[in-house]
Amino acid sequence: MTPQQKSEGQSLAALLAPDILDLLESSPAAVAAETEELHPADLADVAEALPRASLPAFLAALPPERAGAVLEYLDEEIRTELLEGMTTEQSAPLVAQMTPDERADVLEEVDEETADDILEAIPEAARLETERLLEYETDTAGGLMTTEVVSVLDTETVEAALAQVRAIARAGRREAMNTIYAVNSRNELTGVLSLRELLAAAEGSRISDVAWTDVRRVIATADREEVARVVTEYDLVAVPVIDENGRLLGAVTVDDVIDAIQEEQTEDVQKLGGMEALDDPYMQTGFLALLKKRAGWLAVLFIGEMFTASTMGYFESELQRATVLMLFVPLIISSGGNSGSQATSLIIRSLALGEAKLSDWWRVAIRELSSGLALGGILGALGAMRVLAWQSLAGKGVHVGSLVIGYDYGPNYLLIALTIALTLVGVVTFGTLVGSMLPFLLRRLGFDPASASAPFVATLVDVTGLVIYFTVALLLLRGTLL
Amino acid sequence: MTPQQKSEGQSLAALLAPDILDLLESSPAAVAAETEELHPADLADVAEALPRASLPAFLAALPPERAGAVLEYLDEEIRTELLEGMTTEQSAPLVAQMTPDERADVLEEVDEETADDILEAIPEAARLETERLLEYETDTAGGLMTTEVVSVLDTETVEAALAQVRAIARAGRREAMNTIYAVNSRNELTGVLSLRELLAAAEGSRISDVAWTDVRRVIATADREEVARVVTEYDLVAVPVIDENGRLLGAVTVDDVIDAIQEEQTEDVQKLGGMEALDDPYMQTGFLALLKKRAGWLAVLFIGEMFTASTMGYFESELQRATVLMLFVPLIISSGGNSGSQATSLIIRSLALGEAKLSDWWRVAIRELSSGLALGGILGALGAMRVLAWQSLAGKGVHVGSLVIGYDYGPNYLLIALTIALTLVGVVTFGTLVGSMLPFLLRRLGFDPASASAPFVATLVDVTGLVIYFTVALLLLRGTLL
Repeated sequence: MTPQQKSEGQSLAALLAPDILDLLESSPAAVAAETEELHPADLADVAEALPRASLPAFLAALPPERAGAVLEYLDEEIRTELLEGMTTEQSAPLVAQMTPDERADVLEEVDEETADDILEAIPEAARLETERLLEYETDTAGGLMTTEVVSVLDTETVEAALAQVRAIARAGRREAMNTIYAVNSRNELTGVLSLRELLAAAEGSRISDVAWTDVRRVIATADREEVARVVTEYDLVAVPVIDENGRLLGAVTVDDVIDAIQEEQTEDVQKLGGMEALDDPYMQTGFLALLKKRAGWLAVLFIGEMFTASTMGYFESELQRATVLMLFVPLIISSGGNSGSQATSLIIRSLALGEAKLSDWWRVAIRELSSGLALGGILGALGAMRVLAWQSLAGKGVHVGSLVIGYDYGPNYLLIALTIALTLVGVVTFGTLVGSMLPFLLRRLGFDPASASAPFVATLVDVTGLVIYFTVALLLLRGTLL
Repeated sequence: MTPQQKSEGQSLAALLAPDILDLLESSPAAVAAETEELHPADLADVAEALPRASLPAFLAALPPERAGAVLEYLDEEIRTELLEGMTTEQSAPLVAQMTPDERADVLEEVDEETADDILEAIPEAARLETERLLEYETDTAGGLMTTEVVSVLDTETVEAALAQVRAIARAGRREAMNTIYAVNSRNELTGVLSLRELLAAAEGSRISDVAWTDVRRVIATADREEVARVVTEYDLVAVPVIDENGRLLGAVTVDDVIDAIQEEQTEDVQKLGGMEALDDPYMQTGFLALLKKRAGWLAVLFIGEMFTASTMGYFESELQRATVLMLFVPLIISSGGNSGSQATSLIIRSLALGEAKLSDWWRVAIRELSSGLALGGILGALGAMRVLAWQSLAGKGVHVGSLVIGYDYGPNYLLIALTIALTLVGVVTFGTLVGSMLPFLLRRLGFDPASASAPFVATLVDVTGLVIYFTVALLLLRGTLL
């Protein structure tokens, strides 16, 4: 992402907005011609730069099809506010111009009364189609699909089909025009061919001769992650959607798949950060909504973390006898958390991409056990070196700011170094194992693996890390320090 | 992602593999017909299920164009091993059949000698084209683009252009066939139209009359994130790539954009987890390579975290006088880390999507400062309640396993509760601020904001959290406990 580029686009819109505003007052009829060459996405940027009150007049000044397209690209929040503020006479003609899938999405965003009023006022065919789309869950193939697909009977000739496609293309836009679906008389999907293959087909042949019969398809209730997987794996620009009887309902186009992938990824990153996924983009989420999504997990993690206080209390007499042990508590528990965070991020992503499967859990476990031991060995060595280095610098008066470099761990400094090293091996290995296995466990139980957030893993590992630490200390230091 | 689905696909391949193996021995000529209906992606699954030694024979049994397509979908590691193990006489004809962008990608994967040998052996036009593509960085528009685009002179008529497109379609596959680019005599990009628009165009009109002149385009050196942004924002199936003089070089198709988005996201998640991004998928990364990517950051974080030991040492006399303070150290520093992790995940994703811009930093800072205070208030209240509850349960002998519920904090328990509460407000607010501002700072300095990983933020916050804790304790408890 180049933020420069984005702000250029926005300042272009900001530059155009005053001119458009003047035109709207002096000669609204000229607005359409003035903005004719702009992509609807850019036109939406201009609309967003206008005062909210001028938006209805601006959209009214555009040809209805253009206004409908602008509506599709408009910021969700602005669009909802706009439609809820307009009369049904103003809004219905615009919404009627949207593609059926976008129309259904928009009607799900506005309040129920506005949605019902608009549905009443648009042409019946569009209304029925929209109502059908509204029945599907937003995150499913049915919720993502457009019904504007081009289908031809598989018994037709290539010429007849091509003439039909040209007629459809001339009649108006169809979203999924690059792929042509072949159906039989019961509207069951029997084949697929690209517009290019139709053009290249030998004259006189039938659609059933030239269409591919091995069609990638998804059922309307399929999850958006499955839609994304099919489109990504087979490099499709659209995937047909069927009902449970194999009848063609529509298609999910690749632009909606990209949006779905981006949304899914945003949710995963937010969950990984230890919070509930937001419903809207961060900058557009209200303060209280934002707080609600964050406070819940933070409080749960806090309560889980309270066990560290109990654990520390349990070992309090040891800590009082050897306060030196206390100094390393944050270092040790954070090492467990960090190694767990690495492992959980790796595995969550690997599961999300379908690269690792549930059945791979034991291969991953063996791999992560070895990784944990190796990483723990490295940190353990660093930890022991720190103790030995500080011991040798003790009393030499080396300072960095107000922090004294060097510390006298007493006559048992070698045992302390060994305690730290062994603890780190144990804690890092444990953190790595928990971090890598928790996503598998969550998926096995039917939860989203991404809920195995870095803070969640860290909290799980902190308590155990303290237990490992004090157990190792008791074993090694009993009779000397303890 | 449905793992079931994926494993079904793989077991289909596993079922087919023995039959294919038999056929390869008895009548290799029948393999092509037997697998004719399979999508190249599925054929690649079958190839992956075969013994590695049979792969060259399998590919040789397919028509060269099919074999080239299979190579495109083949697992990267297997493909590299295969090509490096084949003779140039075997490999060159297959590689020659690949699309130019895939061919360049493949040649970048294999060792230099193999790549040079194959380049020498493929037809000159393909060689020159591949060499040109190899000059671009993999992560740029030039590195992602295909040169197989359809362009027509903008002075041509619609009929002439259509005839030309049909001829190209019949001659063989072109990747980016759904979009037709209009160029002038200097090959400068002047317009764009979809195949559908060409079909719908009134007969007799010229390309310059019907093409869109406001073409979204990217320069060959543009970063893949910018390519993704343009394709996503304008819902394109392909974006044309130009050189610095505006001449058409090729196009990046949406399937490659999706792959780029997925790779970028994988890198971000891995960085967010506190490690270097892997070059290959997790399951295919060697043990030592995996260790190397993880150990570096883990060691850096460990060394950073060592300051906690120094900080604890600095306050050691206070801790000895009031060991009760020690019990809350893990709880307090982990709360700072968790709130920082939430904030950094939110902001990294928001910056990656271009939703928040660098210039928004102060708006975000105000928002996160308020969020931090509110979240800190909630955790502070919970923390104080814990102290008061345990105090009231002290000595009542309530147990959970071997952990005693209840703790006698002594006569100053109210001051201790207040110390915990105020510290949590401070630590959570600081964690939230650092977590949200660090990604902005990294981007401002030209680094990837995703490097502001959850463990990195936690480490930064841990030391400060301890300082905040002991400072509050000194202020509130001096004269009583301290």
